[in-house]
Parts: sequence; C-alpha cells; structure tokens
Amino acid sequence: MRDYEFDRDHAVTPTADHTYRTAVSDRWTAIGGVPNGGHLLALCLRSLSAELPQPDPVAVSAHFLRPATPGPAVVETELVRSGRRFATGEARLRQGDKEIVRVLASYGDLGAAGGPSELLGGPPELPAPEDCVDPLNGRGIPGVSISERVGIRLATVPGWITGTPGKDPRMELWARFTDGREPDTWALAAFVDFLPPVVFDLGATGSSTIELSVHVRRRPAPGWLACVASTRFVQDGLHEEDFEIWDSTGNLVAQSRQLALLPA
Amino acid sequence: MRDYEFDRDHAVTPTADHTYRTAVSDRWTAIGGVPNGGHLLALCLRSLSAELPQPDPVAVSAHFLRPATPGPAVVETELVRSGRRFATGEARLRQGDKEIVRVLASYGDLGAAGGPSELLGGPPELPAPEDCVDPLNGRGIPGVSISERVGIRLATVPGWITGTPGKDPRMELWARFTDGREPDTWALAAFVDFLPPVVFDLGATGSSTIELSVHVRRRPAPGWLACVASTRFVQDGLHEEDFEIWDSTGNLVAQSRQLALLPA
Repeated sequence: MRDYEFDRDHAVTPTADHTYRTAVSDRWTAIGGVPNGGHLLALCLRSLSAELPQPDPVAVSAHFLRPATPGPAVVETELVRSGRRFATGEARLRQGDKEIVRVLASYGDLGAAGGPSELLGGPPELPAPEDCVDPLNGRGIPGVSISERVGIRLATVPGWITGTPGKDPRMELWARFTDGREPDTWALAAFVDFLPPVVFDLGATGSSTIELSVHVRRRPAPGWLACVASTRFVQDGLHEEDFEIWDSTGNLVAQSRQLALLPA
Repeated sequence: MRDYEFDRDHAVTPTADHTYRTAVSDRWTAIGGVPNGGHLLALCLRSLSAELPQPDPVAVSAHFLRPATPGPAVVETELVRSGRRFATGEARLRQGDKEIVRVLASYGDLGAAGGPSELLGGPPELPAPEDCVDPLNGRGIPGVSISERVGIRLATVPGWITGTPGKDPRMELWARFTDGREPDTWALAAFVDFLPPVVFDLGATGSSTIELSVHVRRRPAPGWLACVASTRFVQDGLHEEDFEIWDSTGNLVAQSRQLALLPA
C-alpha cells in the first residue's frame, strides 16, 4: 500500500489510558506558518477512530483554543456514549500542558445508511478539472506548506490570488490531495478546513477559526472533490464560512460551517 | 422583575465541584412529548454562564446522546480555557447515570465587539408581525407544550400545518416568547431549536437532532425575532437544518446548523 502524506502525517501511537502520542506537522501549515486546523482535527479523529465502535465521523465539532506549533502532541480520548446507531467521543489535543483543540464527534456507519433522500440543490457547475486553471501552476505557496499537499482547480482565478480582491467571498473549485490519495470520510472531515478562507477576497489578511462543525453526509467516490466555500456575513470582525463537498459522482459528501475571527 | 417562564424553567442551583442541580421541564416539549433540545441546551448554558468569565455564548456545539425525560437533572461543567478574548467550557447534562447531552461552548463579550462588517444578505422580507398570521390562533398544539411558550407569525401558513405538506422546506417567520420575555444571547442559543423542523413540509413526522451548532453574532434588540429556517439536503434519512435569527432592528443576531435524523 502506498505511503500517502495524509496518512503518514496523521499517524498516532496508543499509550496508556485511551491516550495517543502524535506530532503536529510543519507540512500542513497555513499562512503565517501556523498548523492548519483541519490537520489538528485529523489527528484528533484518527485517535477517536481507534476508540469508537463505528467507522465514520458523521458529526464533528471542534473548538480551537490556541494556535498549535509543529512538534510533539498528545491526544486524550473519551468514549462518551456508544449507542445502536451512533457512538460519540471526545478528543483533546495537547502540546505540553496546553490544550490546543477540543473535539466532540459522533460516529456512525455511512455504509449502512438508508432512508429517504430529497436534495434541493446539486454540485457546483464547474468545467472538468482538466479544463480548469491551477492558480498555483503546480507549485505551492512559499511558507504555506498545505498548498503543496492539496491541489485545486478553478474555472477562473479569484481576485485575491492575483493581488486584487474581487469582493466575492464565494469560491467553487475542484480539490484533491496532490499525491493522489483518495478521499474517505476521515479525510473529508479535515478537508473542509484545508483551503484558504474566502474572506481573503474581501481583503482580509488572515482568519482564525473559533469553532468548526462538520457533517459528513456520505462515503466519497474516488477522484476530484467539487467544493463550494462561502461567507455571507462578516460582522464585528467575526464571520462564518460554509463549505460543501460533492464527490466525483455528484453526491453530497460533506457540509461544514465555521465561525472565525479576522485579525484585529 | 417579572418572573418569565424561560428564566424560571431554566434555573440551576450550584452544588459541589462546578456541578448544578436542575430539572428537565414538561413545559418545553416537542412532538411526542419529548423535551426540546433547545431547552436542554439552555440548561447547560445557564450552568456554564455561572462558571465562565465572559458574558455571551458565541459559539456553541451540542451533541445529543439520548432523549431526555421531564424530571431531575444535573449539569456538570468544566472550564476548558479562559483566554483574553474567549473562554471555553464544557457542560454535560445527566439524568440518573445517563448522559443526555454534551455541550462545548466558547463565550465572549459581544458588547465589546468591534472590527469590520460586510453583510451579503439581509433579514427575511416579512410583513409586520401584526399583518401576519398566527397559525395556532393564540392556542398551543395539544401535547406540544413548547408551542405555548413560543409564539410565531407567518405571512402564509405552511402546508404541513393544515395537513398538506407543501414540499417547501424553508420557513420565514417572526417568533418571540409568548409571555413577553425579551431575547438575549443566552435565549438566542436555545431559540434556534425552538421551532418545528421544516422537513415537516416534506412529509416528515419527526426529526431527532444529532448535533447542533449555534453562532450568536450580536446582542439582540427587544421585540420580535425574524427567523429563517431551511433544509436543502435530506440524504439517507439525515438532514441539515440551517437557522438564522435577525432582531427587530434588522441585525443578524444568530446562525445555526444542525444535523438530524428522520424516523426510521
């Protein structure tokens, strides 16, 4: 089995008492060299997956308490409840004596899912990935190592990337891991936080997540992920960002919302 | 000071060790006589408010583990982190030896809020409350006691209320406490879960919340609250519901999303 970056950089080692030893990587950093929140979430969920009797993270809530720094970390887990259909756990990622992020997650089995479906919307209307633009021309952004791990394709390049914010805080794009790792429900839960915030197109120079909640809606098919990121309300320096992911076969696979703070 | 129902039914009494004694009420029940999730959340937040050094619940995540039953309950709290701008806490509502709901909440001071604002949307376009319809004609729905506590006004009555689901899972309406209690940030966090799910208009007969996250965006002005509830994606029996609340002066005051499960 190929050694993909996402799997290697989110390995965790059990120690005593439902606790896992791991490391925050410098290979998933956002602007400013700060480890990306999705990376931290993936470490927490990797640990919880080893503790919970259900396979798929279905509803995940993360509260970000402090910025992380690359280096050793510990994830403490707790089984909160194991029910017939869902199992809920909690994870706390610590570095030294500081808690960095706390996560509540309810897992279920999306492979066994049934019940009614009625969708009042569909995937974004994007040209095929090969007909889209790679705004980074196959290179990463210097100092933003996550941009080397996650590739994107857009119909048109957003204004902020070329230096002129277009005042359109909505982005539709294809995305996938650059090394070809296919998505799964674990990766989707982190992927919703892997892209630059769309408030950059309003001229923002950064954004710190306070809370992120993810709903994984279905197991994804292999291939590119069609994503829609949007912010409607910036108010008093706080903004939400909504994120939708559709798989290559046109199924809705994840939805998220986060509340984030603009730099003072 | 007048003794409003919301305050009386969400009183909590400190006992030892950051724990509060309280009761799940039979006065805030949804269809089936099940205590409403917003009611449980309000009990948790009332307890956390007594523990955290910041005044307003800004980002709140709740995972619902089991249905509650009217009767005694205990809320255990934990101060997770107290920072300069936000303080984060956790609350666990228990009945007997069963944990019913677990909540993570980050509090801040929305009275001191500043920073840029840019809104790409506004409140719903509703006729004035006095020109709207009260679908319940001033009465509650038998067996649904929360309908006696929360009054609503709509431009037109949704099909499901008159027995013919209109296949339109979106509702714009005015809402407020029937006894005249004015909204505050604590009440808003619960209010997002106080109304019947809009999937009723798709013919659903119930809906159980798995996870609810609320972002309180501003302190509300007195008066009616303009609300927008919508579901876009029912898939395999799971659906999200988004909820927005605007105050009587036209400010966005709360936003929420929940993931819920239709009856099998």
